[in-house]
Amino acid sequence: MPKIVDHDHRRTELVQAALRIVVRSGLSGATMRDIAHEAGFANGAIKPYFQTKADLLLATYEHIYRATNARMRARTRGKRGLAALEGFAEEVLPVNPALHEEAIVFLAFLGEAAQNPEHLQVSRNSMEEWRTWIRDWLAEAIDDGEVAAGLDVDIHADLLLTLAIGAQPMSILDRQRFTFENLRRMVHRHLDWLRGERDA
Amino acid sequence: MPKIVDHDHRRTELVQAALRIVVRSGLSGATMRDIAHEAGFANGAIKPYFQTKADLLLATYEHIYRATNARMRARTRGKRGLAALEGFAEEVLPVNPALHEEAIVFLAFLGEAAQNPEHLQVSRNSMEEWRTWIRDWLAEAIDDGEVAAGLDVDIHADLLLTLAIGAQPMSILDRQRFTFENLRRMVHRHLDWLRGERDA
Repeated sequence: MPKIVDHDHRRTELVQAALRIVVRSGLSGATMRDIAHEAGFANGAIKPYFQTKADLLLATYEHIYRATNARMRARTRGKRGLAALEGFAEEVLPVNPALHEEAIVFLAFLGEAAQNPEHLQVSRNSMEEWRTWIRDWLAEAIDDGEVAAGLDVDIHADLLLTLAIGAQPMSILDRQRFTFENLRRMVHRHLDWLRGERDA
Repeated sequence: MPKIVDHDHRRTELVQAALRIVVRSGLSGATMRDIAHEAGFANGAIKPYFQTKADLLLATYEHIYRATNARMRARTRGKRGLAALEGFAEEVLPVNPALHEEAIVFLAFLGEAAQNPEHLQVSRNSMEEWRTWIRDWLAEAIDDGEVAAGLDVDIHADLLLTLAIGAQPMSILDRQRFTFENLRRMVHRHLDWLRGERDA
C-alpha cells in the first residue's frame, strides 16, 4: 500500500521550518538542506514542494500574512471605525514575542523583494488590501462622527500603513526603545490625533 | 618602484560596485567575484578590504548613512525647529531616484541585520543619532512656540522616525502609490499635525 502523504501538511511543516531558520540564523546562509533537516525531512524532500529558496520565502511570507489577517478578522469582528483600526494595529504591530518573530521574516522578505517581480507583486497586493481596510474604517469613523467629516482618508491611510510597516524594522533594530509598550503608545497617540481632527 | 594604491579610493569603488549590484540584482545572489568584476578588479582584490559579503554590506550601509547625513547637514544648516525637521524628512524619504536606490540597499541591510549583532549595533546607533536630532528639533519647536509646550517629544520622535523608516519599504513595495510626491504630502500632513498641537 503506498504511503499516503498529506501534501498541505508537508508544505506547512516546511514553511514553519523556514520560519524558525530565518528567525534563528537568517535566510541567506541557510541551504535547502538545512531547512529540510530542520523540518525532519530527507535532503531531497523540499524540491517537490518548493523549487527554490525564493519560493519557500514567498510561501513563508504568505503564511504569516494569512495568519495575521485571521487574527485581525477575529480582533475586529463586530467593530467599526477607530475601534476596528485599533484592533488592526494591535495585530499588525510587533507587540509580542511571536509577532516580533514574524517581523524578522517580514524584513527578510522585504530585503529580497526589490529584485523579485513576483514577490513585489504579492507584497503590493497585501499592502493594498490592508490599505483598503484602513480606508474603509476611516470612512466609518467619518460616518460615525469619530473624526472630522473632511478628513483626507487617502493620506491618512498612507500614514497609518507606513507607521505599521515602519514599526517592524524599528522593533528589530532597537528593541530596547521600540518595546511592545512603546509601539502601543505610539499608535494610540496617532489615533488620538485622528480623534482630534473632529473639529478640523 | 611599487605601485601606489589609494586604499580609501579602492574601498569606495568596491562599495559603489556593491551598491549597484544590490540595486540591480540583490545581494543574496551576488558573489564577491561578481562585485570585484563590477568594480573592474581582479577576483582576489576584495579580500584585503572586505573579508566577507556581510562586511561589504555593512560598509555600503555606512556609506549611504554618511552621505544622507552630509545632505541633511547641508539642508538643515541655519534652520531649527519644524523647518529643520522638514529638511531632514526631505533628505531621508526616498523622494528622488537616487534616494530610491539607497532605500533598496537600506532594505537589503535590514533583511540581514536581525541575525548580525554587529549590524544591529551599527543600525541602532544610527537610528539613535537621528532620533536625538529629531528630539532636539522638537524641543526647539516648543521653545519657539511652533508647537504646544506640553508636546511629548519622546513619543513624537518615535513616530517621526518610524514614519521615515517605514517610507523606505513602502516606496519599493508600491512605487505607484508611494510616489515622491505622495511621500512629501504625507510628511507635510504629519508636520501640520504637530503645528496643530499648539493649543493642545
